Amino acid sequence: MKPPATLVALLHGPDQPGLVARTSGWIYARQGNILHADQHRDMEAGEFFQRIEWVPAGPGAANEATELRAFAASLGMSANVARSDHRRQGVLFVSKEDHCFHDLALRWKAGEFAGDFACVISNHADLAGAARHYGLAFHHVPVSAATKPEAERRQREILRTVGAEFAVLARYMQVLTADFLQNCGVPVINIHHSFLPAFAGGKPYHQAHTRGVKLIGATAHYATAVLDDGPIIQQDVVRVTHRHGVDDLVRKGRDLEKLVLAQALRWHLENRILIYGNKTVVFD
Amino acid sequence: MKPPATLVALLHGPDQPGLVARTSGWIYARQGNILHADQHRDMEAGEFFQRIEWVPAGPGAANEATELRAFAASLGMSANVARSDHRRQGVLFVSKEDHCFHDLALRWKAGEFAGDFACVISNHADLAGAARHYGLAFHHVPVSAATKPEAERRQREILRTVGAEFAVLARYMQVLTADFLQNCGVPVINIHHSFLPAFAGGKPYHQAHTRGVKLIGATAHYATAVLDDGPIIQQDVVRVTHRHGVDDLVRKGRDLEKLVLAQALRWHLENRILIYGNKTVVFD
Amino acid sequence: MKPPATLVALLHGPDQPGLVARTSGWIYARQGNILHADQHRDMEAGEFFQRIEWVPAGPGAANEATELRAFAASLGMSANVARSDHRRQGVLFVSKEDHCFHDLALRWKAGEFAGDFACVISNHADLAGAARHYGLAFHHVPVSAATKPEAERRQREILRTVGAEFAVLARYMQVLTADFLQNCGVPVINIHHSFLPAFAGGKPYHQAHTRGVKLIGATAHYATAVLDDGPIIQQDVVRVTHRHGVDDLVRKGRDLEKLVLAQALRWHLENRILIYGNKTVVFD
Amino acid sequence: MKPPATLVALLHGPDQPGLVARTSGWIYARQGNILHADQHRDMEAGEFFQRIEWVPAGPGAANEATELRAFAASLGMSANVARSDHRRQGVLFVSKEDHCFHDLALRWKAGEFAGDFACVISNHADLAGAARHYGLAFHHVPVSAATKPEAERRQREILRTVGAEFAVLARYMQVLTADFLQNCGVPVINIHHSFLPAFAGGKPYHQAHTRGVKLIGATAHYATAVLDDGPIIQQDVVRVTHRHGVDDLVRKGRDLEKLVLAQALRWHLENRILIYGNKTVVFD
Repeated sequence: MKPPATLVALLHGPDQPGLVARTSGWIYARQGNILHADQHRDMEAGEFFQRIEWVPAGPGAANEATELRAFAASLGMSANVARSDHRRQGVLFVSKEDHCFHDLALRWKAGEFAGDFACVISNHADLAGAARHYGLAFHHVPVSAATKPEAERRQREILRTVGAEFAVLARYMQVLTADFLQNCGVPVINIHHSFLPAFAGGKPYHQAHTRGVKLIGATAHYATAVLDDGPIIQQDVVRVTHRHGVDDLVRKGRDLEKLVLAQALRWHLENRILIYGNKTVVFD
Repeated sequence: MKPPATLVALLHGPDQPGLVARTSGWIYARQGNILHADQHRDMEAGEFFQRIEWVPAGPGAANEATELRAFAASLGMSANVARSDHRRQGVLFVSKEDHCFHDLALRWKAGEFAGDFACVISNHADLAGAARHYGLAFHHVPVSAATKPEAERRQREILRTVGAEFAVLARYMQVLTADFLQNCGVPVINIHHSFLPAFAGGKPYHQAHTRGVKLIGATAHYATAVLDDGPIIQQDVVRVTHRHGVDDLVRKGRDLEKLVLAQALRWHLENRILIYGNKTVVFD
Repeated sequence: MKPPATLVALLHGPDQPGLVARTSGWIYARQGNILHADQHRDMEAGEFFQRIEWVPAGPGAANEATELRAFAASLGMSANVARSDHRRQGVLFVSKEDHCFHDLALRWKAGEFAGDFACVISNHADLAGAARHYGLAFHHVPVSAATKPEAERRQREILRTVGAEFAVLARYMQVLTADFLQNCGVPVINIHHSFLPAFAGGKPYHQAHTRGVKLIGATAHYATAVLDDGPIIQQDVVRVTHRHGVDDLVRKGRDLEKLVLAQALRWHLENRILIYGNKTVVFD
Repeated sequence: MKPPATLVALLHGPDQPGLVARTSGWIYARQGNILHADQHRDMEAGEFFQRIEWVPAGPGAANEATELRAFAASLGMSANVARSDHRRQGVLFVSKEDHCFHDLALRWKAGEFAGDFACVISNHADLAGAARHYGLAFHHVPVSAATKPEAERRQREILRTVGAEFAVLARYMQVLTADFLQNCGVPVINIHHSFLPAFAGGKPYHQAHTRGVKLIGATAHYATAVLDDGPIIQQDVVRVTHRHGVDDLVRKGRDLEKLVLAQALRWHLENRILIYGNKTVVFD
């Protein structure tokens, strides 16, 4: 038996007494059954954050989502409401490095994500066959300095055409322009192969090797106009020693990148992430 | 300015719709301000767990605790309510190994715990001077097979005299009897120097070395009548290699034991731990 | 330019003065160039262990391997010598769970292993297509209580036919008999989905959930006649909380299993592992 | 029975064939018994590194150290040779934060270090009593912008007087001048409360909180003329979430700082660390 469809709301606004009671009371009054409720207060900033998941009583989940938004607004909060029976479609950006690509595709096929990849976009043709093997449409959009504006125009068109609600940069080796990121209309999750803010920019494993750090890291974050500076979703590290050359760092880093990016995407698709300022609240 | 006194309730009972709304509604109706609320459902067991921390509106914190217990009972739940302005007193049991003892005493003096050590009980006199240096009364209660019943009688008397509400076995090298544990009237937190359930019983580092494991661990748990079998609070591990002899395991393990025991005690004193069956829910 | 072929010797025997000097002196006298040399002494057991990798001076690597074995014997040591220009062939055993299978196959194709998979053996047909997609021959060898002896006879025959020098049980859900393991003629690496020796046997994630542990683990070990008891190669753990049901443990455990098994196989194929008694020395 | 005195040599120079054989051969020829030998090659830089520990045959350990230095020089290598029967004396610099101070003092008394603290220097008087309780002489050397040159002169004099061979900055909250560091004549180990190179400089936990990282770290390094830029010895991290305010980061960081600094000092005193360029080789 399929579990009943649920609603997940992410609420966010200035703190005030009674918010927990009033949101749960609103749902209870409509005979909804709260499965999970998680709150956070940023005492310093005076902000309130809540993730609440419930089974609505009636069939009108769409209505209930709309009404919750209005209710939240009446409390001075913004609300993002998602329905578990709506699987979001996204686009996977890749280049030639294929480890995150295979990892995400296999996890998707294994049912680990509460969403789907609609297609793959790449600036190289190398992974076309592999994408199709996974049942994913593949769009080859070459990019050069001269063609970048046109390439980004095509990428945005693909996003629109497939009705994308998110994008993932799975070691996509091109910098997306601020213009693209501000206007593509979907959140873009990137994996950077360092423990940000250390070693932002190019060749982070080389930078790490030169500095002689004893741990290397990977960081999944929302891409923003400033390179490698967006809100951090997840990070992890692994120990290295003087015995590890740059090649070893690259190899060990691949495992980190896969785990960190997959975890970030899983959280995103389960509506566990609230962005505020340049930071995230992750209700895990 | 001191933060206002808060109440922390740990609630626990059969799941039913509306519990989140009703508990938060009860507090809101009395004009309390909820600071933190965390819930958990064990779907399989049909159990509901909640930790809720709030600033009561009036001065009557004691009354409010009593009334919340009655309200919880009306919902079929048991409630444990603690007040932040009441610092619980506990007893520290030690033997000769002093690393956990020093660690807990220093953390206590640094203000890391929401409770106090009333005194130290030891079956050896070695740490008497150190205890007094920390300002802790020291009771030397020698234990032998023959004197154990009498020794445990004295230990219970000390617990009673100081009004102990908890006890910590900081590498106390004596097995407390089931009779003591069942009748001492306070929760007893123990640190076992292995990743339980592996290597229960004596000389766990020797056992680990013989088996050739690649990680060693430490486990903080509530002591029960069955040795090394009580509800687990916290565990951690550290990597070892073939280069590490038993002495190295002991040395590396000391750091694990300190961290794991201190974390368990901190959570206990902040009322973050609910025991059910032989497991714990830790609201961290 | 390809790096020159190297020899790797794993030496092992009773400790005596001068072993480091004599083995390195032997290689130096023949104008070999030592790239890595790593030693270990088990002081308690009086055993000496060494891994030494060098570029032999002449073209006669095969001869040099034979001669080193004789030289080691003259020092009372056994020697296992491998040549980097000989890639060992192995067999991958799988059932229906495919995460370790995909992970190993992709790492193999990415060049992470100093050896190859010659074929896949499974008691189910589910992964036949996937195996062929990776370019791997697939042998379906069904197993039932009644047919087990015959099935193991066929498995041994396949090992012989492909010239297997190792086997990997990638979540192969059948217990191999002591007879098979003693007579198959190759080392067999298994992944067990717990932190051994805790939770040996069936359904370890269920056992872990029931016991309420705060970390779950995975263990790669050489399979021996006693189930889940062979020499441990690698272990790792990941944190879990009361929020994680058995399904979450299974999902989180998959990532552990992949990493731990791949690491164990990489070390094995680089001749970094010496077995002695029921333990391993891993020169990483 | 006391173990026999050993020599530990750290060798370092341009790589050439035969170095492993020649150094071990030199010791063997003098009937020394090699206990540990560990090598590393930086293939890119063409550098060879070795740590070798042995029991010399005769009573003349001092002579043997001198002779090994000459022998190493004849191979183009520099050698640092230490004797296990000579315990080095060092100076502990502290300010008001006392967690690293207590941690190091307790480990020292527990026998974890192959060296001793000769005294404590602080710019505040707060820890005078605690230092004396541990049996450590305490020198109060106040520092202000105006008195810094004079203060550093006194500090250097104390180092000279006690015959210091190393110094540890255990959360010493003053920046030592480049002049002091270049002329104090001893290696200086510092603990920085971030995962360098991220968050160098002041208030790293505040910086980490503002950036919204998901892990905080600590770094032990040799202090050099450039602030927080010296060769890294050891690093570690711990997970944090949006629930942790700056105070929590400070508290969690204290445990990291203690472990990382103690590990770095232990390695230093066991002659496990070779510095080259701005990096370290740690033979652990």
